[in-house]
Amino acid sequence: MTEKKDKTTIILFSGDLDKAMAAFIIANGAAAYDHEVTIFFTFWGLNVLRKEESVPVKKGFLEKMFGWMMPKGAEKLGLSKMNMGGLGPKMIKHVMKKHNAMPLPQLIEMAKEQGVRLVACTMTMDLLGIKKEELMDGVELGGVAAYLGDATEGKVNLFI
Amino acid sequence: MTEKKDKTTIILFSGDLDKAMAAFIIANGAAAYDHEVTIFFTFWGLNVLRKEESVPVKKGFLEKMFGWMMPKGAEKLGLSKMNMGGLGPKMIKHVMKKHNAMPLPQLIEMAKEQGVRLVACTMTMDLLGIKKEELMDGVELGGVAAYLGDATEGKVNLFI
Amino acid sequence: MTEKKDKTTIILFSGDLDKAMAAFIIANGAAAYDHEVTIFFTFWGLNVLRKEESVPVKKGFLEKMFGWMMPKGAEKLGLSKMNMGGLGPKMIKHVMKKHNAMPLPQLIEMAKEQGVRLVACTMTMDLLGIKKEELMDGVELGGVAAYLGDATEGKVNLFI
Repeated sequence: MTEKKDKTTIILFSGDLDKAMAAFIIANGAAAYDHEVTIFFTFWGLNVLRKEESVPVKKGFLEKMFGWMMPKGAEKLGLSKMNMGGLGPKMIKHVMKKHNAMPLPQLIEMAKEQGVRLVACTMTMDLLGIKKEELMDGVELGGVAAYLGDATEGKVNLFI
Repeated sequence: MTEKKDKTTIILFSGDLDKAMAAFIIANGAAAYDHEVTIFFTFWGLNVLRKEESVPVKKGFLEKMFGWMMPKGAEKLGLSKMNMGGLGPKMIKHVMKKHNAMPLPQLIEMAKEQGVRLVACTMTMDLLGIKKEELMDGVELGGVAAYLGDATEGKVNLFI
Repeated sequence: MTEKKDKTTIILFSGDLDKAMAAFIIANGAAAYDHEVTIFFTFWGLNVLRKEESVPVKKGFLEKMFGWMMPKGAEKLGLSKMNMGGLGPKMIKHVMKKHNAMPLPQLIEMAKEQGVRLVACTMTMDLLGIKKEELMDGVELGGVAAYLGDATEGKVNLFI
């Protein structure tokens, strides 16, 4: 007989480095406290999951434009404040290194190892023209129904 | 004897098209799953509810300025990212049409039909000088007490 | 025998005046309804707690830069929208005064008087080089574990 675990769900709507870091720090913390954790990536949040390299997929013109303009993956994200044309993220990464804080790609790896589920929103993937092959491995696909199923049982539900 | 329904509450603080769409997609999903859903519109989120046409109401100078500078209704909202002077919203609306995704005004109509309650925050209406006559029909007025009453019983409570 | 109180937790990630006001209005409302309320300040949200005057503390170069570029305390915050180089906050403060709405510093005082706990995130304090002496009195320090402990029991958990 297994006890039912607490659930935590996070919708990551933002594609900003600072907000993505906050999401993964909370997710990893909750997983360490034995919560079942799911992060739902929607809109700009999908950029966190994109592979750095170009993946050859067929796209329409606007989808290509979106793909070209949006950052590709955790290393390329900007800050929600004080981005200063990319100087802000450099400064943050520098102080994180100095303080031995985990950078975002490592936070993502840790989340996967701890069994945090990463779910990409199929509806916004369609809109922004992002294909599954362009996302990192280990990502599930899901919609608003999957989110609500989890969140209704969640103790902690955040929109970031 | 009726079973008590699950509750979902969303505070829509943002007046960005993408965030408003996310709010209404979640709200409509939750309503479809038979939740009682309330969206509280505060600060810039009030702009989502504004009528497109000017409504003759008495206002002070600063209230007129706010009214003139803020977008009037769902058709006029910008994006939180990649707004590019209005090009971004045009691109998003174009791909939504292509993928047969519901545009925001239709998502709002659907929410009303499903019984989602739309509550405008009276305190920020006062501050920004927005009168009830300037908001779309079917909107209720409420304050932080109304929100907390609902949210305390809510299974899913989000701030967007 | 005491009844267990409802709990409300807010993560204030944003350092914008409008979002900070929203956080404190909800927190004060919840405290008035006899909830146990905690606000966790992380990333730019820490700026809300900074003292206006410079406090002599030892810092590295980047930490000094962050400290110099970020707003010092509730009086100096900008708006998330329509900041217009500081004109927006002036307009908001003006209409708040006209409508007898509490300005942010007073909302913070009221929160303290009502027993709302203000917790500064130690990890982001480290990253941004903010020392405890630079924060207003009555602020506790805590990490993601403290947050999760509270949020797991929270009825209303928001990320702002």
